[in-house]
Amino acid sequence: MTFESQNNSKVRAHTNIALVKYWGKENEALKIPTTSSLSLTLDKFYTDTEVTFKNELAADQIIFNGEAVKGNKAKRITNFLNIVREMAGKNIFAEVKTSNNVPTAAGLASSASGFAALAGAASKAIGLKLNKKELSRLARRGSGSATRSIYGGFVEWQKGFGDQTSIGVPFIEKVDWNIHIVAILVNKSEKEMTSTQGMKISKDTSPYYVEWKKLCKRDLKNIKIAIKAHDFSRMGKIAEENAMRMHALTLSADPDFTYFDADSLKVMKLVHNLRQRGIECYFTMDAGPNVKILVEDHNLVSLKQELKKDFDEDKIIVASPGPGIKYLK
Amino acid sequence: MTFESQNNSKVRAHTNIALVKYWGKENEALKIPTTSSLSLTLDKFYTDTEVTFKNELAADQIIFNGEAVKGNKAKRITNFLNIVREMAGKNIFAEVKTSNNVPTAAGLASSASGFAALAGAASKAIGLKLNKKELSRLARRGSGSATRSIYGGFVEWQKGFGDQTSIGVPFIEKVDWNIHIVAILVNKSEKEMTSTQGMKISKDTSPYYVEWKKLCKRDLKNIKIAIKAHDFSRMGKIAEENAMRMHALTLSADPDFTYFDADSLKVMKLVHNLRQRGIECYFTMDAGPNVKILVEDHNLVSLKQELKKDFDEDKIIVASPGPGIKYLK
Repeated sequence: MTFESQNNSKVRAHTNIALVKYWGKENEALKIPTTSSLSLTLDKFYTDTEVTFKNELAADQIIFNGEAVKGNKAKRITNFLNIVREMAGKNIFAEVKTSNNVPTAAGLASSASGFAALAGAASKAIGLKLNKKELSRLARRGSGSATRSIYGGFVEWQKGFGDQTSIGVPFIEKVDWNIHIVAILVNKSEKEMTSTQGMKISKDTSPYYVEWKKLCKRDLKNIKIAIKAHDFSRMGKIAEENAMRMHALTLSADPDFTYFDADSLKVMKLVHNLRQRGIECYFTMDAGPNVKILVEDHNLVSLKQELKKDFDEDKIIVASPGPGIKYLK
Repeated sequence: MTFESQNNSKVRAHTNIALVKYWGKENEALKIPTTSSLSLTLDKFYTDTEVTFKNELAADQIIFNGEAVKGNKAKRITNFLNIVREMAGKNIFAEVKTSNNVPTAAGLASSASGFAALAGAASKAIGLKLNKKELSRLARRGSGSATRSIYGGFVEWQKGFGDQTSIGVPFIEKVDWNIHIVAILVNKSEKEMTSTQGMKISKDTSPYYVEWKKLCKRDLKNIKIAIKAHDFSRMGKIAEENAMRMHALTLSADPDFTYFDADSLKVMKLVHNLRQRGIECYFTMDAGPNVKILVEDHNLVSLKQELKKDFDEDKIIVASPGPGIKYLK
C-alpha cells in the first residue's frame, strides 16, 4: 500500500502534573491504569512534534532536539507509530521531529507531552480524523500520563473498563483560579528507575498497594470537590498526601527504592516550614527527584524568595495552568 | 513510710536494634505494642545507671552524663520511678546517675538501654527481687524497646494480651554467628519528631497501618526461621524491607514526615550498590537519620573501606551481638 501525498502535521502538547497520581497498570499492553487520576496541565513545559509520512523512507526516522534517536527510545516511538499505521491501514514510515521544553525523564512527565503531541501529529499526518476523546485514548498507548495532556486545565483520567473507556476527561478546562506550580529542577539527570519499572515493582510487591487503590478513589472524589470550591488548603493537602502515599509504595516495594535525593528532602522540609510560618504551599513529586510546589498567587513572591536562598534562580520555574494540544500545522 | 538503709544498685544495659520493628502502641499508658518485634542486642552501645534511694531526698535527682536533668526528661524518669515505688510500696526518692554510651535520641534507641538499666538498678535498689521476665515487663513501662534490652542476642518482644504477657523473650541469647551491625552516625542531633509522636501519628493516620500489622506477623515468623538457619541473605532482606515499610508509614501519615536526611539516602544507595557488586549487606533505620548496616564478618573490611570514602572513620561504629543486663553493684 502506498501513500498518495506527503502528509505532515505539527502539534504542541503541554505536560501535566498529577495531583492524584497514576501509579500502576492493570493492563500493561494497553496501559490501563489500576486507578483513575487527576492532573493540571502546565503552560511552561511542552513538546513540539512534527510528523511527516514519506513513501521513500525504509524505516522511521526520529529526531529529538535535533539529534537522531536510536535504541529503546526510538523503538518506543516506532511501536506507537505502528498503532497509528494500523488504525489508518497504511504501512508507511514517518519522519518525526520533536523538541522538548521539559527536562527528559526527571519526573517532569516529558513522556506525557511527548506522546500527546505525537498522537496529535501522527494521527493527523496519516489522515485519521480523531476527536479529542479518540486522541486521548491513542495517546494513552504511548504513555499513561499522555492520556491527560490532550486537554488543558484540570483533567481526570478515568480508569474505565478497557481500551475504549480508559480516557482523559476534562474536569475544568478553563481554570479561573490564580494558582501556580513552582518546579525546582534539582536534578536533570535521567532516572535510574523508570516510572514504568517503578510502578510495576510497586504494584507487584508493595503490601500497601491494595490500600493505595482505595485511597486514590477517596482522594479523587475529595480533590474534585476542593477544586470546584477553589479550596486551596484542601486541594494542596490531598495532593501532598497522595504523592507521599505513592512514594511510600516505592519504599515498601521489594526491592525497596526511592526517587528522593538530598535536594528533594531539602525542598520538602522547606515547604513544611513555610506552612508553619503561614506561607501556604504544598509539594508533589513524581518518578524523579524534582519537587513541584503548589502555591496561590498571593504567596508566590514569598515562596520564590525562600527558594532562592537554597537554589539557583534558573532552577526555579513558575508554571501556571496550561492549554490542551494545539495544531501548529 | 521510711526506708531503713541507703539502698543502691548499678546496672549496665545494652541497646538493641530491631530487625522487625515496633512502630505503634495498642495501649499508650501501658506501652503495649500493636505488633510483636524482634531485635539484636548490641555490644557497643550501652547505658550505665546507678540508683540510690535516700530518705533525706525531697525529690528525685537525675544526673545524666554528669549533669542535672530537669523538665520532661526528668519527669519521664520520675514517672517510671513512681511505678517502681508503687510496686515496692515504698515512698522514697532516688538519686539516679546515668551515663550513656549511645548518641541520645538519634535513632539509636538510647531509651532502650536507658530504661532497661533503670529498671534493673531501681528495682534492686528498692529491694524488689525481680526475675528477667518481670524486669522486662517493668522496663517496658519506661520505653517499649527497653522491653527487649533485658536480654542479650536475638530477642522477641511478644505483644501479648496485656501488661502481664507483653514481655521480652530471649530467642537466641548466645549468638554463634559472626555478624555485625555497622552504625553510621550521620547525625547526632536530637530528632524533631520523637518515636512516640511518630508512631502515634502513623498509627492514627496512615492508610497503610492495618497492612503493616499483618506484614510484621509474617516478617517475624520468617526472620526467626532465617536466624535459626543462619541464612544471612534472608534475614537481611526481611530486616531491610521491614524497616522501609515502617518508614513508608511516616511518609503516608497525615502530616507526612520522614526521618531520612541526605546522608541517610547516601548510605542507603551505597548499600544497594555494594549488594550489586557482591558485597552483601542490608540496612535498617529507626526514628532518626542514622543508618545501621547488617554485614557478615567476611564482608566487614570491604564495607568499612567503602564507607570511609564518604564518612569520617569516627562516625563508623562496628557493633556485634551483645549481652543482656548486668549488675555492676
